[in-house]
Amino acid sequence: MKKFNRKERVAAIMNILTEKTNHVFTYNYFTEMFGTAKSSISEDIMIVKELVQDLKLGKIITISGASGGVKFIPTISKEEAEKFLNDISLKLRDNDRIITGGFMYMTDLLYSPNVSYRIGRIFATKYWDENIDYVVTVETKGIPLAMMTAKVLNVPLVIIRRNLKVTEGPTVSINYVTGSTRKIQTMSLSRKALKENSKVLIIDDFMKAGGTARGIKDMMNEFNAEVVGTGVLISTPEPKEKLIKEYTALLNLESINDLNNEIRLTPNNDIF
Amino acid sequence: MKKFNRKERVAAIMNILTEKTNHVFTYNYFTEMFGTAKSSISEDIMIVKELVQDLKLGKIITISGASGGVKFIPTISKEEAEKFLNDISLKLRDNDRIITGGFMYMTDLLYSPNVSYRIGRIFATKYWDENIDYVVTVETKGIPLAMMTAKVLNVPLVIIRRNLKVTEGPTVSINYVTGSTRKIQTMSLSRKALKENSKVLIIDDFMKAGGTARGIKDMMNEFNAEVVGTGVLISTPEPKEKLIKEYTALLNLESINDLNNEIRLTPNNDIF
Repeated sequence: MKKFNRKERVAAIMNILTEKTNHVFTYNYFTEMFGTAKSSISEDIMIVKELVQDLKLGKIITISGASGGVKFIPTISKEEAEKFLNDISLKLRDNDRIITGGFMYMTDLLYSPNVSYRIGRIFATKYWDENIDYVVTVETKGIPLAMMTAKVLNVPLVIIRRNLKVTEGPTVSINYVTGSTRKIQTMSLSRKALKENSKVLIIDDFMKAGGTARGIKDMMNEFNAEVVGTGVLISTPEPKEKLIKEYTALLNLESINDLNNEIRLTPNNDIF
Repeated sequence: MKKFNRKERVAAIMNILTEKTNHVFTYNYFTEMFGTAKSSISEDIMIVKELVQDLKLGKIITISGASGGVKFIPTISKEEAEKFLNDISLKLRDNDRIITGGFMYMTDLLYSPNVSYRIGRIFATKYWDENIDYVVTVETKGIPLAMMTAKVLNVPLVIIRRNLKVTEGPTVSINYVTGSTRKIQTMSLSRKALKENSKVLIIDDFMKAGGTARGIKDMMNEFNAEVVGTGVLISTPEPKEKLIKEYTALLNLESINDLNNEIRLTPNNDIF
């Protein structure tokens, strides 16, 4: 077995912790990997811990005891999040994005892994303390954001379907009213999708009146799950009265005007 | 500014390269970050390069010249991929997963970020040399796998919709015939979704006769895009004649028998 020196070990530990965040790796995992004493691994981890702090990458948490180990909680600083949301706002305000009917094309950003990963990291930073068991979304456009948030938090994603699926076994279906158009819609979720008494974080791309988020909340009630947070990329100031009370929107979309060819959209600088 | 020593720099470089794979970071990026001479950064990167090789994490590619830099191509070894697929097979063969009608519940695995990330890494390892511009899938169950593959390859994801969406602007719709049930279905994609003459990788969760993959291929023709690969998590041996010629399936599903309560599924050990 090759003997790894300290700089190699700390780099390898950094790689492992970065790839699988919020997962406890035992000290044994590393002593076996590198064939090194626990005391050396402890020192390696202290170096990584300090580095993560200095570079404002998040937190390294060490858990002592027999089942102890180390995990990495990546966060994003307020400053970095604001800079990122400002960049995204600039891109979204591009009037080439205006679609007839007052819509805005944004799937290129939503589906770009680096954009959705950073959005996921912002949501994770906001909700780390809530001990989330699942990230929940409804198909389709919010899935990449929800998936990346789930990746950072290291919890499973739950995707609520618009239609009943025979491949999912016994299913719970609920009706909900879209807040803005007042249409009755259905959403369905397999009975197997969540364990009872879970804490969930709702993630979606867009919120107008909050009808969909409210529908998800009602669905979660059917699973005895508690919604501990709701994060959306974009919300609109109108209607003022949303169907859910607490949520975090990263961007505010004031208007899309296809007559004077203008999108009014601003970042929310009050997230953390 | 804090002065970082070598072991801190190599760990930080490892973190940066791991978080954003297949992206060229210039030497200047690191010299500015650490306030260190280019010669030191060069040596740091040589250490990282050797380490990545020793630990079989993939490849570090250095690009010389003025616009040069360094990027990380994560791969998975044949041995590790086989071990992972064996584990997944064991989990999927659990007869608790059998759903009336001859279906298998698997969304818990598909939507688990660590499972889908590893599947994405296997597909990326298979298709690195194809210079892929986009990963393409059709909603819904394949999206997490496709998103993670896109994340590793660092290319945008394209999600084809089952229904026409007014929010996406001018749209291309095609009809296709599902290979197994011979039903005519529609899929739609925004004109803005892909640049012309792109190379795309199709990723999906399941393939029976290949009708959906064939539909995606036909859709790609409408965008003058070339399908350079198709990766599916699971395929069935029947029908033998698939509607597409070349594809990589990670698992083979022989049968789901809800009478004798048995799932026959094996990993494909011939991927790379």
